[in-house]
Amino acid sequence: MVEIVRGLDGVVITETRLSRVDGDAGELLISGFPLAELAPRARFEETLFLLWNDRLPDADEEAVLRRSLAAARPLPPAALEVLHAAAAARLAPMDALRIGLAALGLGDPGLHRTELHRESAEANQERAVHLVAALPSLAAAYHRLSRRCEPIPPDPALRHAENYLWMLAGERPDPARTRALETYLNATVDHGMNASTFTARVIASTRSDLASAVTGALGALKGPLHGGAPGPALDMLCAVREQARASGRPLAGLTEDWVCERVARGERIMGFGHRVYRVRDPRADVLGAAMERLFPSRGGSPLYDDARTVEEAVLRTLERLKPGRRLHTNVEFYTALLLQSLGIEPELFTPTFAVARIAGWTAHVLEQVAEDRLIRPRVAYAGPAERGWVPREERHAASRPAL
Amino acid sequence: MVEIVRGLDGVVITETRLSRVDGDAGELLISGFPLAELAPRARFEETLFLLWNDRLPDADEEAVLRRSLAAARPLPPAALEVLHAAAAARLAPMDALRIGLAALGLGDPGLHRTELHRESAEANQERAVHLVAALPSLAAAYHRLSRRCEPIPPDPALRHAENYLWMLAGERPDPARTRALETYLNATVDHGMNASTFTARVIASTRSDLASAVTGALGALKGPLHGGAPGPALDMLCAVREQARASGRPLAGLTEDWVCERVARGERIMGFGHRVYRVRDPRADVLGAAMERLFPSRGGSPLYDDARTVEEAVLRTLERLKPGRRLHTNVEFYTALLLQSLGIEPELFTPTFAVARIAGWTAHVLEQVAEDRLIRPRVAYAGPAERGWVPREERHAASRPAL
Repeated sequence: MVEIVRGLDGVVITETRLSRVDGDAGELLISGFPLAELAPRARFEETLFLLWNDRLPDADEEAVLRRSLAAARPLPPAALEVLHAAAAARLAPMDALRIGLAALGLGDPGLHRTELHRESAEANQERAVHLVAALPSLAAAYHRLSRRCEPIPPDPALRHAENYLWMLAGERPDPARTRALETYLNATVDHGMNASTFTARVIASTRSDLASAVTGALGALKGPLHGGAPGPALDMLCAVREQARASGRPLAGLTEDWVCERVARGERIMGFGHRVYRVRDPRADVLGAAMERLFPSRGGSPLYDDARTVEEAVLRTLERLKPGRRLHTNVEFYTALLLQSLGIEPELFTPTFAVARIAGWTAHVLEQVAEDRLIRPRVAYAGPAERGWVPREERHAASRPAL
Repeated sequence: MVEIVRGLDGVVITETRLSRVDGDAGELLISGFPLAELAPRARFEETLFLLWNDRLPDADEEAVLRRSLAAARPLPPAALEVLHAAAAARLAPMDALRIGLAALGLGDPGLHRTELHRESAEANQERAVHLVAALPSLAAAYHRLSRRCEPIPPDPALRHAENYLWMLAGERPDPARTRALETYLNATVDHGMNASTFTARVIASTRSDLASAVTGALGALKGPLHGGAPGPALDMLCAVREQARASGRPLAGLTEDWVCERVARGERIMGFGHRVYRVRDPRADVLGAAMERLFPSRGGSPLYDDARTVEEAVLRTLERLKPGRRLHTNVEFYTALLLQSLGIEPELFTPTFAVARIAGWTAHVLEQVAEDRLIRPRVAYAGPAERGWVPREERHAASRPAL
């Protein structure tokens, strides 16, 4: 009997220098840096450089990367036309991102034409710069087009994260908001061999091109099992707030009842608990601290104030109902709060996650190029033994085997 | 120490009813049918039905599938516009296919909006019909546009394979040519857990959508390590023929010298030998037989006549130089001959492979939906131990650790 390892559970596929996820200790290293050390301090350009080059850039190197990114932000007219058509067809944002990513090649056919293993490391990094720079432009332009607003052209004077907020809202973000977004981007830039990153590596392992790998990863990120989609956590929060408002009951008590009902019905409480982390998710810590810096005193954000009340009530109730299970607030809860506070709406949550994770995808593809090994597992055949051809006239409903 | 299984070599990821590859015996089962039993007999519609439903259709079921495919062939105007733009940018055909596939959603936004595991099996099969039907339309339309010809609209009276030849050339293919193409499509429809099929399953495992899975698979198929790209085999054949013509030497003797030189330099002879099959690739047998039926007597195809001379000379020389290695003619050699004989040019070889393999991709996605298990391996961290943040002003070239 062959052993079947469904879901590749526990199979270690390769080595990486990019991140270490330690679920038992609740630790996440990004290129050697503990997340709490890196995320609140690094500019996104620095994190990108770190992932691609395994060290932080000096001032000149950061300036070069910043200019390269700024130069690659404007969308080719053909890609904008495709986004217009996508908005007219009311495509979901992730589907618009995918078609937009493909359409980048209309402005730069070489973007797809490269074959990963025939290019120099520098040439592949140039392609990576192009894709990382263009993704926020696509996300922001599509978001505005789908609201019948004109896209806002990127501003080359702004840094990556700053410019994303600018293209979304058309307002200069203050440094605190840019810092909060950069902290989010840094916190979610890479996370072991998650399904979208794995997709990118499988595609790259065939020596295909970087855009193909990133497009495949986008398709995997869209799946609800991928995780990191904070929409449902925000829905939960809003539902409880709305019930409290309508009933006039205090938020804490209402949340407790609400959790008891959900748990009694065997439902999950979105925003709490994690598949991998047995202790508190280090990303939740980092994003929680970012929220504290953004709103240092109560009253700064009614949503955040209520979120803290709800979080405390949920954790208290879960500890009472499931003692010892130690369910913690997860990254989705704080992601929802943070992005919402920055004016990034729920339908942009997954696209914004992609804006962060594309850094990890491209870095993993560069690692895979260096490894240069086709990823091709096996499969066990469980179908019928040899069948013989049945002429058409002899096939009829009665002869159908059960499925 | 954790065990690292690079390339997932030998790891069995799941069970499938779709195909069994036995490299030692040189056998390939497609849904239980030995390839030689199925490939020369089945219409492509029958093979599709077989993969999706695990049995051959009766006449009514085949007629229903045929009508559904025919109805889904016409490209939405927005997708045609995108292909026009792609032709203007001179995108490679596989890149045009990917953007075209994304653009199908402009005509039918629901194509991407579905979430695989929330849909019924019937709804997912409808999406699969749409994608399988549209892929040849995209490939043929783009091929003509890139030659400044107008696309030829699909003809609903024609069967899938027949209509593909029609859209490419604008001539009614005779039944022998349609039969030859169907034999090729059947022979390459599925082949275990190859990298593109695996990509489709990884994406589907996140509960994403079918179009995302197929788009990711296209990106993997494009990679030169994926295999099944018969271009180099044809290049080899043409180079030897050209040398013989120019030098006036007999083809057989020239081929022998040519193989000796290549082997002495340690180069591979394209079109011979296979990673998995230790005996003759069963697909090569089936395609060779199809060529025999298409050109039963010498003189019917000068290319095929020469190919047989070259094949004999290559095999004879390889047996002499590497006795016991038993290198055989592989599927790429016959694919090149067969497609070229049908007027399908080398730049359409990989797109035409996709036209076949999409049947396997969609069938594997439907299997993955039934399994509903996230595919997420692990990775071993090989990066630096904990690093501390270095302020910007303290970073300079001298402090750079070696890569």
